[in-house]
Amino acid sequence: MRLSTFRCEPLSNSQGTNNRTLQESAPVFTDDFARVFKTLLTWRRDVRRFKTDPIAHGELLNILEQADLAPSVGNSQPWRIVRVRGSDARRTVAETFENENAKAASAYGEKRASLYYTLKLAGLREAPEHLAVFCDPNTHQGDGLGRQTMPETMAYSVVGMVQTLWLAARIKGIGVGWVSILDPAAIHKALNIPDTWQFIGYLCLGYPEEEHIEPELQRAGWQGRTPMSDRLFER
Amino acid sequence: MRLSTFRCEPLSNSQGTNNRTLQESAPVFTDDFARVFKTLLTWRRDVRRFKTDPIAHGELLNILEQADLAPSVGNSQPWRIVRVRGSDARRTVAETFENENAKAASAYGEKRASLYYTLKLAGLREAPEHLAVFCDPNTHQGDGLGRQTMPETMAYSVVGMVQTLWLAARIKGIGVGWVSILDPAAIHKALNIPDTWQFIGYLCLGYPEEEHIEPELQRAGWQGRTPMSDRLFER
Repeated sequence: MRLSTFRCEPLSNSQGTNNRTLQESAPVFTDDFARVFKTLLTWRRDVRRFKTDPIAHGELLNILEQADLAPSVGNSQPWRIVRVRGSDARRTVAETFENENAKAASAYGEKRASLYYTLKLAGLREAPEHLAVFCDPNTHQGDGLGRQTMPETMAYSVVGMVQTLWLAARIKGIGVGWVSILDPAAIHKALNIPDTWQFIGYLCLGYPEEEHIEPELQRAGWQGRTPMSDRLFER
Repeated sequence: MRLSTFRCEPLSNSQGTNNRTLQESAPVFTDDFARVFKTLLTWRRDVRRFKTDPIAHGELLNILEQADLAPSVGNSQPWRIVRVRGSDARRTVAETFENENAKAASAYGEKRASLYYTLKLAGLREAPEHLAVFCDPNTHQGDGLGRQTMPETMAYSVVGMVQTLWLAARIKGIGVGWVSILDPAAIHKALNIPDTWQFIGYLCLGYPEEEHIEPELQRAGWQGRTPMSDRLFER
């Protein structure tokens, strides 16, 4: 990757002598920043193979603070993040993964199931940090704004937070793996979570054992990316 | 915002003389890049006040290509993005917003409803680009991997794509507004969308009329951000 310099410049804004400044001093992002941001997107991976090295607590908090800047419907900030440290809780989570993964594998024919079993779909035993992510759909924050017609936008807000966390972590060399093969009821029970919260996903965080520009599912011959043009339409 | 230089450096990796290189040449992101990324998160806004200036087609495609690098369950890439250009379609979307917004306002008491009506919750009449975003939960891509236990992870993948689009647009000075006060059935009908697709959200894109570091809902006195510590738990 070639070296380059890049800067972040203030907008040349109209700071009049009156008290009403219509425009705050917003940043302009340079082409170099844009280029490295694209590199970040290209090298973000769903990581399953972690070193066991710990993540410094300050580093974790810094990532969480950035994730917390994600957009949310009505500014409701409905994410609830549970840092899972207890070994009993972690063991139960790993067990629900094993159970659900065996069920999932059984849906495939023999040949595809063999390939399925070669895939590493979680890194629960190695990842130093586990974050169970929930949505509190009943939070008073936001006073219901924007979510009456489509209440699922609360869960969607939580997902936007996760994607923000993912990128902030990757910048610091920390991999994130979203484990989705989990029974939400079992997770609620294992972590003693209020019934009203909705389980969104379980994140493993840690330093990756390997770095790849291609998704593991592509390298393993399960599923590669396809052309974007197939996903664009016009009306 | 002060100027600075920053670089993106390759990992010093172990490129042995054998054919198995365990580590590809992954980038290391500098502290300066991390700092400007945080600036990006801080200044991303849900924009409702747009200039009518058009977005160059190449710029729009560039943003969509970056969004398409988002993670997806089983590499299913289930997002379906409909660029809405037709004036009849746009008018119908604006009408469903007005209808649903009036219903939503009626849920509040008199004082709060007055404040509600001062908020600008969509920019449908001014924004030069409209993207209706759907999920195709039945896509064969990914062969069902990772989504059997929690099928909602398909919709969640689409939301991660939207958040990626949001950031990529903001880097280019383009604002995004997610309109969630819409009847999905009306959107399906207005845009002639397959019944099996799931409506996720409607995005307005355009150059912002104003730049603010604080969310509009905070400035308007509806809902500010709250401390992150309220959303963190440990087990």
